[in-house]
Amino acid sequence: MAASKSESRKPLKFLQPYIDARWGIKNHWYPALFSHEVGEDEVKGIQVAGEHIALRRANGRIYALQDVCLHRGVLLSARPTCLTKDTISCWYHGFTYDLESGDLCDIIASQEDPLIGKVSLRTYPVREVNGMIFVFIGDEDYPRQPLEHDLPHRVADDYEHRTAYPLDEDTVLLGIRRECVGNWRLAAESGADPGHVMIHRLSALLLSQNLGFPLSVKLKDKDSILIKDEGWPKGIGLDYTTLEHVMENKRLGVKTYGNTVREGLNVTMYLPGVLYVENWPDYGLAQYEWYVPTDDKHHVYWQVLAKTCKTAEERQDFKVQYDNCWEELALKSGFNDDDIFARAAMEPFYEDERGWEEETLFSLDQFVVEWRKLVVNHARGIQTPPKQKTG
Amino acid sequence: MAASKSESRKPLKFLQPYIDARWGIKNHWYPALFSHEVGEDEVKGIQVAGEHIALRRANGRIYALQDVCLHRGVLLSARPTCLTKDTISCWYHGFTYDLESGDLCDIIASQEDPLIGKVSLRTYPVREVNGMIFVFIGDEDYPRQPLEHDLPHRVADDYEHRTAYPLDEDTVLLGIRRECVGNWRLAAESGADPGHVMIHRLSALLLSQNLGFPLSVKLKDKDSILIKDEGWPKGIGLDYTTLEHVMENKRLGVKTYGNTVREGLNVTMYLPGVLYVENWPDYGLAQYEWYVPTDDKHHVYWQVLAKTCKTAEERQDFKVQYDNCWEELALKSGFNDDDIFARAAMEPFYEDERGWEEETLFSLDQFVVEWRKLVVNHARGIQTPPKQKTG
Amino acid sequence: MAASKSESRKPLKFLQPYIDARWGIKNHWYPALFSHEVGEDEVKGIQVAGEHIALRRANGRIYALQDVCLHRGVLLSARPTCLTKDTISCWYHGFTYDLESGDLCDIIASQEDPLIGKVSLRTYPVREVNGMIFVFIGDEDYPRQPLEHDLPHRVADDYEHRTAYPLDEDTVLLGIRRECVGNWRLAAESGADPGHVMIHRLSALLLSQNLGFPLSVKLKDKDSILIKDEGWPKGIGLDYTTLEHVMENKRLGVKTYGNTVREGLNVTMYLPGVLYVENWPDYGLAQYEWYVPTDDKHHVYWQVLAKTCKTAEERQDFKVQYDNCWEELALKSGFNDDDIFARAAMEPFYEDERGWEEETLFSLDQFVVEWRKLVVNHARGIQTPPKQKTG
Repeated sequence: MAASKSESRKPLKFLQPYIDARWGIKNHWYPALFSHEVGEDEVKGIQVAGEHIALRRANGRIYALQDVCLHRGVLLSARPTCLTKDTISCWYHGFTYDLESGDLCDIIASQEDPLIGKVSLRTYPVREVNGMIFVFIGDEDYPRQPLEHDLPHRVADDYEHRTAYPLDEDTVLLGIRRECVGNWRLAAESGADPGHVMIHRLSALLLSQNLGFPLSVKLKDKDSILIKDEGWPKGIGLDYTTLEHVMENKRLGVKTYGNTVREGLNVTMYLPGVLYVENWPDYGLAQYEWYVPTDDKHHVYWQVLAKTCKTAEERQDFKVQYDNCWEELALKSGFNDDDIFARAAMEPFYEDERGWEEETLFSLDQFVVEWRKLVVNHARGIQTPPKQKTG
Repeated sequence: MAASKSESRKPLKFLQPYIDARWGIKNHWYPALFSHEVGEDEVKGIQVAGEHIALRRANGRIYALQDVCLHRGVLLSARPTCLTKDTISCWYHGFTYDLESGDLCDIIASQEDPLIGKVSLRTYPVREVNGMIFVFIGDEDYPRQPLEHDLPHRVADDYEHRTAYPLDEDTVLLGIRRECVGNWRLAAESGADPGHVMIHRLSALLLSQNLGFPLSVKLKDKDSILIKDEGWPKGIGLDYTTLEHVMENKRLGVKTYGNTVREGLNVTMYLPGVLYVENWPDYGLAQYEWYVPTDDKHHVYWQVLAKTCKTAEERQDFKVQYDNCWEELALKSGFNDDDIFARAAMEPFYEDERGWEEETLFSLDQFVVEWRKLVVNHARGIQTPPKQKTG
Repeated sequence: MAASKSESRKPLKFLQPYIDARWGIKNHWYPALFSHEVGEDEVKGIQVAGEHIALRRANGRIYALQDVCLHRGVLLSARPTCLTKDTISCWYHGFTYDLESGDLCDIIASQEDPLIGKVSLRTYPVREVNGMIFVFIGDEDYPRQPLEHDLPHRVADDYEHRTAYPLDEDTVLLGIRRECVGNWRLAAESGADPGHVMIHRLSALLLSQNLGFPLSVKLKDKDSILIKDEGWPKGIGLDYTTLEHVMENKRLGVKTYGNTVREGLNVTMYLPGVLYVENWPDYGLAQYEWYVPTDDKHHVYWQVLAKTCKTAEERQDFKVQYDNCWEELALKSGFNDDDIFARAAMEPFYEDERGWEEETLFSLDQFVVEWRKLVVNHARGIQTPPKQKTG
């Protein structure tokens, strides 16, 4: 028993960009808000990867602009001021910006001001689909990317265990988002981590379904991991239905309960940090998760269930089930709250970068390592830290 | 539309002393407490420009001393201990200081201690007038300055719109003070800023008086600004009754309400950050404001209404009006609370000095720039940051 | 009156190790928990001198291990997971450690993992006696020291005012511990400081006993201080029954009340910060205190009363008296709460090391200076600061 903590592996040099990605990766699409959070003429301010962004809906359409007034740096969203359908004004001195271009097009009390027309607020590409609003965070001159490239792949229509794709017309997305403690990388790493699933072994979700969910799976070699890095989207995953399951540890007296087998259970994590769990929390549903960096110590945890609903009745049934069962049983206390607890618990160890050097990985962390490589090799950019937090 | 945020003006080099004045300017008089806050033998601790100061009243007179015991650095005011009329003692080990000189003149439990008579607490010049206590903050060897030099000028007796001067015998001063978020410079800049008045356009104070208050005024050139920089006090101001008013912005559909004209409305900001608004919030009253730095992120906002009252009845009437109308309608929710909100909203942008570089000024900011110049050219010194906050 | 604060003594160079001991001194025994705080199979996490330690009881015996999982740095104690009597498991991925050796002996969901047997958690020596659990904090290879060396000396059996020794079989220890604000050095310095006793002059404990307790004592020279620095334990003390008492200050009108004399009153402070007050709070009792560093700004304040109880009835009587009288009257509001207030009040002045340079010592601080020397000359090591706080 010679080895001690200080002899544990140092992070490989190629991981440095990952370690630098404390504020997120850029030139990617991230979810911003649920559609119902921004009504007509409402303005909501959010922070993504350190950037303050104001979202406003006008004539039904969503616009996203830098939420920091050029004049004296206050947040536009602090006191939403919308005077026309095509502008947003600062509540303080009346700097008024064109929603589409971000151009300073008026100043309430200085209508002929020479500054008008000379400066612009940054704007952000936006897409709204099936009740979710996405923004593209990155360099202003970065070529537009399709949203599809930053979402899980669309499964073939004829796959027998197929679940709903977020962008399909007949897909219903229901879920929640909440700001949680922990850097986005810790959240993303824990999302599909096959080594952590034993923390859920006594969860109400598993017990209520009598689900034969393993303590873990065996990763024999790299081939156990599905690496999808040609074209977009890019992700890595595990097919739980084909991997060997670990169901108990006799030495320690730990076992998993339940014997129902969940068919079609696949778990995949995509860039820029999107989890896709097929046939979860129930057969026929899909759970999508995002871990959106806000600052360097917090992320917004998006948990969304997707179902194909072809009729109004199906939509309504899904809503009833979501409201009365899945939100609490799958997304909150019955399962995922344990994940939130775990991410927060890791944060102090990694907060000063110490963890990346001192962590001691084991065999199941192959998956985490492959995820880190995916980010290093394929993220479209590393977000530069803001000079300072605003607001 | 070529210019972007990063191309905005850099702060001029001559502004550096202003940027350095994060902890305030020194060798000036600042209000410390209202008289009623320190009863006979009471001790109150305050922080001004990073300095901890204990104020004590003995035989009716106010004394101000360094609030940090020489021995082990505790605040004397944490557990006020006054054993004689001419001393203040530390509650911890009994170090006892002469109120007048600050000299260590006794130690409760070590009456013959060799240290007695060898060290002194710093003392501060004090003046108490019409219910307000002022202290002079600055270098110990700086020549005494008259309080009058750090107050708004006294208006000529025969000026028809004359309002009360704080030091006059028949002046009654009524007001409040509260610690607010925001560096003192942001507070002082917003005090007389002609570009911000539109935030008050829907205030109860204006609407209740049907007051024809503009969205802003036009500053044609530097001559629109009254610069009083010969002799003391030094200030810059605007005469609202002579400047062209902006009453609406048709493009954006914004207008001001009311058509009563307020005569004699002058607004002037003096060193070290004292606002004087003549004939406000009502004709015949004056509003004085101070923005006293506590630390680098907070200031004490003093709001004082002044009125000349020649009889006891007049005093009582003014008190009734102040208590039941002006405090809420003018100083709080009916008007000035919006200013407090605005200062706090600017703080993050300027907190790491970033704002001074990145702000984008417009025509009405000429006034703010002139104020900054006044500070640079005439402040009697820049306060050095404390090594550390105590208490 | 020439001297000013800036001319006060600079700390002597030999004090530097003391100034560096912000996180405590190492290779010493510290109290960790009361026995009743860790029941069978319970796990409790504590922080001592910046180190996170998990204590677990199995088969009645207490084990102490590093509380930071080697894998991803979470605290084991965050969700105690004990699956067998000889292991502790991490709740997150199931890393399972041998209680005795700290070796990684299993991973719940990866039973054949190559990492098993290759790495170890740090373990700590433990001793449990008379209801208190002590841990030895220091270098892993530092020679074991007897707990007796880090406790107050055992008084000779025939000393007429003898009080109970913590390790004796017939000693009963009753007390409390609480985390308080203030670096451990400020707490230890105030523990036996003869200059501060006047803060207790109006305490209910003294008044209720009519105790003739001085405002201070006179320290004529170094010989007034008992220095015990040969062999172990090492401490410095005062014999209050032989020193000249200061009972009043006529100039300031301060006196002490009461005239009962407490016989056998000795006060001694031992390394690593253990106070022993003989015949306190009552004749026949002893008060022991520890000031255990947690981080650099807090300490755990241990207050323990000791009494020799030879019969079950004596034990029960002592318990009744402790519960209904001494805990509140001596350890809390009736006396020691004032000490807690004072330590917190000193913290800002010393927090950035400023206080060590700027403090102005007086004659009674000879005692404090001798204590500092004792630490400099005899502490077995200075604790190195943690890279970062975990948890």
